[in-house]
Amino acid sequence: MKLATIDIDGKIGIAATDDVEFKCLLQGQAEFPGTLDELLAVGADLDAVARTVLKGAPLHDGTVFLPPVRRPGKIICVGLNYVDHAHELNLEIPDYPTIFTRFFTSLIGHENSIVKPGCSEQLDFEAELAFVIGRSGRNVSKADALSYVSGYSCFNDATLRDYQFRTTQWTIGKNFDQTGAFGPALTLSSALPSGASGLNIVGRLNGEVVQASNTDALIFDVPSLVSLLSEVMTLEPGDVVITGTPAGVGASRNPKLFMMPGDVFEVEIDQIGMLRNAIVG
Amino acid sequence: MKLATIDIDGKIGIAATDDVEFKCLLQGQAEFPGTLDELLAVGADLDAVARTVLKGAPLHDGTVFLPPVRRPGKIICVGLNYVDHAHELNLEIPDYPTIFTRFFTSLIGHENSIVKPGCSEQLDFEAELAFVIGRSGRNVSKADALSYVSGYSCFNDATLRDYQFRTTQWTIGKNFDQTGAFGPALTLSSALPSGASGLNIVGRLNGEVVQASNTDALIFDVPSLVSLLSEVMTLEPGDVVITGTPAGVGASRNPKLFMMPGDVFEVEIDQIGMLRNAIVG
Repeated sequence: MKLATIDIDGKIGIAATDDVEFKCLLQGQAEFPGTLDELLAVGADLDAVARTVLKGAPLHDGTVFLPPVRRPGKIICVGLNYVDHAHELNLEIPDYPTIFTRFFTSLIGHENSIVKPGCSEQLDFEAELAFVIGRSGRNVSKADALSYVSGYSCFNDATLRDYQFRTTQWTIGKNFDQTGAFGPALTLSSALPSGASGLNIVGRLNGEVVQASNTDALIFDVPSLVSLLSEVMTLEPGDVVITGTPAGVGASRNPKLFMMPGDVFEVEIDQIGMLRNAIVG
Repeated sequence: MKLATIDIDGKIGIAATDDVEFKCLLQGQAEFPGTLDELLAVGADLDAVARTVLKGAPLHDGTVFLPPVRRPGKIICVGLNYVDHAHELNLEIPDYPTIFTRFFTSLIGHENSIVKPGCSEQLDFEAELAFVIGRSGRNVSKADALSYVSGYSCFNDATLRDYQFRTTQWTIGKNFDQTGAFGPALTLSSALPSGASGLNIVGRLNGEVVQASNTDALIFDVPSLVSLLSEVMTLEPGDVVITGTPAGVGASRNPKLFMMPGDVFEVEIDQIGMLRNAIVG
């Protein structure tokens, strides 16, 4: 079961699919259960919500997919979390996760355009698995960690490589407006293998596979990340963790391969979905 | 004129002072104008709000100061932004600001306790000037920048040095719960020199001055930061920018000087106020 956040003619809605067809309910309708941000905040039973939403109407033409969570309190990003990606960067396998962050002003949804800013020619792709926290927790054990995860989605952590490395801290290269593609939907944990393990993840640039791995290759898996992060900070409903990208990013290729206006990038993860975004300049 | 966010017996309120005495209005009172987060979001005239709040009641015993903005959409932190601090770290004067971030789960207010986690003995102090964005902007010129700034406050960007440098990215060492002290109040821009320039900033550990500088020594001043950051991302009302710390931090001393439970740290900035926090373990 999957839940998406949508906009139809300026009305925010929630859409659900059991992998046949999306149905939706919109703000203003009596049955509207709330936005996904609101439902996460109050700890709603998202499987029950999805069953309600499946009684709604089909999507109209012109439906816009928004980020599943529009205004996460935290967007926590993990660097160097696939063995092969650490190798292509000539880095050791880390013993602690490298953490950087995004602001929600950088987020866009499925089928929205990633914007290449005029100031950089180094817009790179990063296909990633994202997960969303469903309840508040601090000092969560690995054994309990998955009970804090509501669901999973695809993310393209598109990065301006020159700005990423302009100083020691990557923040700027990761936070240009409309560079963080997230969606199309939140696939609920109940619909997936434990910790979203064993799922193929693929990145495609203009239809050609440029990244291909499996979530089993994560150095820090989902329970480890929940546990390690919660030693530091209180995780809250709606917080998003983006788990890192496998090998194949454009900056590590010879010749380098960056995204340009007119390109299309897809992130596809088994059972979770396919996120597609065109690039505009 | 200054505005603070307070909690009295579990009720959120807003307090104002013209530097004689704080007066306040609380949620539930007819005259309550909204929280400072809400007022920033709607672009309220904060000077007019302050005049209204000054007609309220004096603070009770037991008033708790909260962070002036409780849930900023962004907390943008600038590293290496004082000439003397760059020198003490043996670093070049940068030509672009080093940016890292905090999550709002790390924030506490004036007179609340900074928590030293049990996992680190390297809790360091960083006295800083913070400013708060008052209206939404992208690609703001330096000339227009100050019209986007609502006001200024004190910040102690307390840092776990070992966690800061455990990987290349500083995020973890900057985001332990209850390590970002912010307040006591937002001093409105109208009450200060343009860009909060020319103000002495002092950090005191247990009453002894350990950091002393002036906001004129900022490498990237407030208009420059607004302009540079807005080239990358949309700045929104309530966003907080923490402008960096001058020389004197504990990790750069010989012997090193870290904060321990029982210590008290104060950040004082001319005309802006004095932020005091005890350390607990």
